[in-house]
Amino acid sequence: MDYNKASLLLHEANKGKISVESKVKINTREDLGLAYTPGVAEPCRRIAENPLDVYQYTSKGNLVAVITDGTAVLGLGDIGPEAALPVMEGKAILFKEFGGVDAFPICLDTKNSEEIIKLVKNIAPTFGGINLEDISSPRCFEIEKQLNELLPIPVFHDDQHGTAIVVAAGILNSLRLIGKKIEELKVVLNGPGAAGTAIIYLLMEMGVEDIIVCDENGILAESRLTPLEKHKKMIAEKTNPRNIQGELKEALKGADVMIGVSVGNILTKEMIKSMATDPIVFAMANPIPEMLYEDAKKAGVKVMGTGRSDFPNQINNVLAFPGVFKGALSVRASTINHEMKMAAAYAIADMISENELSEEYIIPDALNKAVAEQVAEYVARAAKETGVDGI
Amino acid sequence: MDYNKASLLLHEANKGKISVESKVKINTREDLGLAYTPGVAEPCRRIAENPLDVYQYTSKGNLVAVITDGTAVLGLGDIGPEAALPVMEGKAILFKEFGGVDAFPICLDTKNSEEIIKLVKNIAPTFGGINLEDISSPRCFEIEKQLNELLPIPVFHDDQHGTAIVVAAGILNSLRLIGKKIEELKVVLNGPGAAGTAIIYLLMEMGVEDIIVCDENGILAESRLTPLEKHKKMIAEKTNPRNIQGELKEALKGADVMIGVSVGNILTKEMIKSMATDPIVFAMANPIPEMLYEDAKKAGVKVMGTGRSDFPNQINNVLAFPGVFKGALSVRASTINHEMKMAAAYAIADMISENELSEEYIIPDALNKAVAEQVAEYVARAAKETGVDGI
Repeated sequence: MDYNKASLLLHEANKGKISVESKVKINTREDLGLAYTPGVAEPCRRIAENPLDVYQYTSKGNLVAVITDGTAVLGLGDIGPEAALPVMEGKAILFKEFGGVDAFPICLDTKNSEEIIKLVKNIAPTFGGINLEDISSPRCFEIEKQLNELLPIPVFHDDQHGTAIVVAAGILNSLRLIGKKIEELKVVLNGPGAAGTAIIYLLMEMGVEDIIVCDENGILAESRLTPLEKHKKMIAEKTNPRNIQGELKEALKGADVMIGVSVGNILTKEMIKSMATDPIVFAMANPIPEMLYEDAKKAGVKVMGTGRSDFPNQINNVLAFPGVFKGALSVRASTINHEMKMAAAYAIADMISENELSEEYIIPDALNKAVAEQVAEYVARAAKETGVDGI
Repeated sequence: MDYNKASLLLHEANKGKISVESKVKINTREDLGLAYTPGVAEPCRRIAENPLDVYQYTSKGNLVAVITDGTAVLGLGDIGPEAALPVMEGKAILFKEFGGVDAFPICLDTKNSEEIIKLVKNIAPTFGGINLEDISSPRCFEIEKQLNELLPIPVFHDDQHGTAIVVAAGILNSLRLIGKKIEELKVVLNGPGAAGTAIIYLLMEMGVEDIIVCDENGILAESRLTPLEKHKKMIAEKTNPRNIQGELKEALKGADVMIGVSVGNILTKEMIKSMATDPIVFAMANPIPEMLYEDAKKAGVKVMGTGRSDFPNQINNVLAFPGVFKGALSVRASTINHEMKMAAAYAIADMISENELSEEYIIPDALNKAVAEQVAEYVARAAKETGVDGI
């Protein structure tokens, strides 16, 4: 189908995709007196006395801001806040349709990180959580970090952690198939941008000890001559324990897992052949993956994941973010910590039973609305276990 | 009925009053491909090429931000952004129920005017209009003025202009009753805060030439010894053409109209008796008006309006703002100018036919949803006539 044309028609016919609706009716003088003046003064007074009562009497507790500055939208890049709005509205409706979470898009007319941080902090009273979206790397790291420190509510950059959670789920299920242990894996990641960086840290939290990270100039190593950006320097310090030097192809020798969040067509048959037995490849460059699905299978890849819905094992963030926020909001978590992200990965992986699991089915279907339910349960439990529930 | 208790229950049962809903369904892979990736990229590209296409493909054109810093909420004062949220959600649902306008509350964790201005400018890409709400005077004047200059979309401080429009409508219909002409009126206004100031300017635009303004220190006059705030100084320069000196009681001698947006119980029987024949009094202090309805009628007031729903002629902003924004958005007006505000006042006044018009019925019922429709029509026409339509 011609998605472009049909999507234009859909957006035009509906004048966008979101609406704000009233949960109460206003037909009588009493309705008006209860929802607005004079009755509304009483919940106001209660909240003024006890600020946490805002969760009792308003929509805040189920309301997430989807915030972008439009600098890294889909594969389109820095297209600005207005052009980013269709994506943010899309995100908002996925929150609702999959997680039952009310989400509202806020597209920012500034790219200044300090201004963004201050602004998000200043609009936070309305919201129970903040979902950062399509903010370019490496700015996204500092913005998310500072907001997490400033705000008493969860802040989550979905391009980073949503992708990391679903990739981690895919790796967990690949391991169930091939019988390797996570702490014995040799992992190579190509493309330490927003998603790549979060994947690295989440996998390390989950037990991966040997991970090599490459960018367009080769393996990230403390010894590298080209100066490294701050976040890459931190990665270099924590990865590459065998101190391998060189390019992606050197990194891949003997590797069990290759994760690509980079550019299309950079993997060769030879690289795959140099990997360990039963190689696992997640090639998520979009729309053209690091290696095409059929070429990868022919070269001997055991489990292959991509970002595309026309191949098996699609890595789709929609499996993660609705349930992650639903779970975090349900227990009024103050943050979304590593344990909650790991729990989300296990929740997604556990959706597939031993009987169902196969090379072509390690990730549940993006449209399976039961996933968010299970993710929310696991995430809420992890929040309680780590004591970040009950703002 | 006990509004306080019932309102708490209503707010708690519904966890607030707003929800964000999807206008499209996401059940199939195709739905997902149209509303989100890959299809959504095409509206994004169109808007990136032509920014005004954002009105074609997104919800922006019908979306209003209801923005407060929580400094002047109802009669409750500076209760902060969280405690203001029930009021802002109430406002949002009135926008929807009466005007069909999607409105979303943004409660700000800052009282710094410069920060507020910058913030509103920076979140504006999502919205078709900005409704400022419950921001304390005199800060509200500068914030609204600067935002109107900065933004290509309508900015409207409802506490000012919403009230002014409904008061103006009431005066228009009072004049139909008693047969005086607007340009011959002697008007006294007590309380030049947010609403008072806007009422003064709107009445002057509509033809009132003789208006005297009082605050708690008496008549605003250029000669007054106590130094005047900036906005009061401007009012003093433009009002009091007969150069009357003294207190409210001096101002009221021979006046046709008294407008109170001040404090309760400050009008006396003697003051009313000193006014011209068929005196008109709008006593809008809440909950206790400048003079009680029955006392005013006994003292000889011909037409009496208050802010209360338990007396006739309630001055209720809900008669204005939903229709004002509906009309402005319908023609993509870049601002809400004096002509559009006047048109709104005439639209409200015209809802009442000659046959229906009486001393007890100069303002249509706040629950009459046909009012917003007529206000929108008049406002849209005025926008076109003054050439501010078609952003």
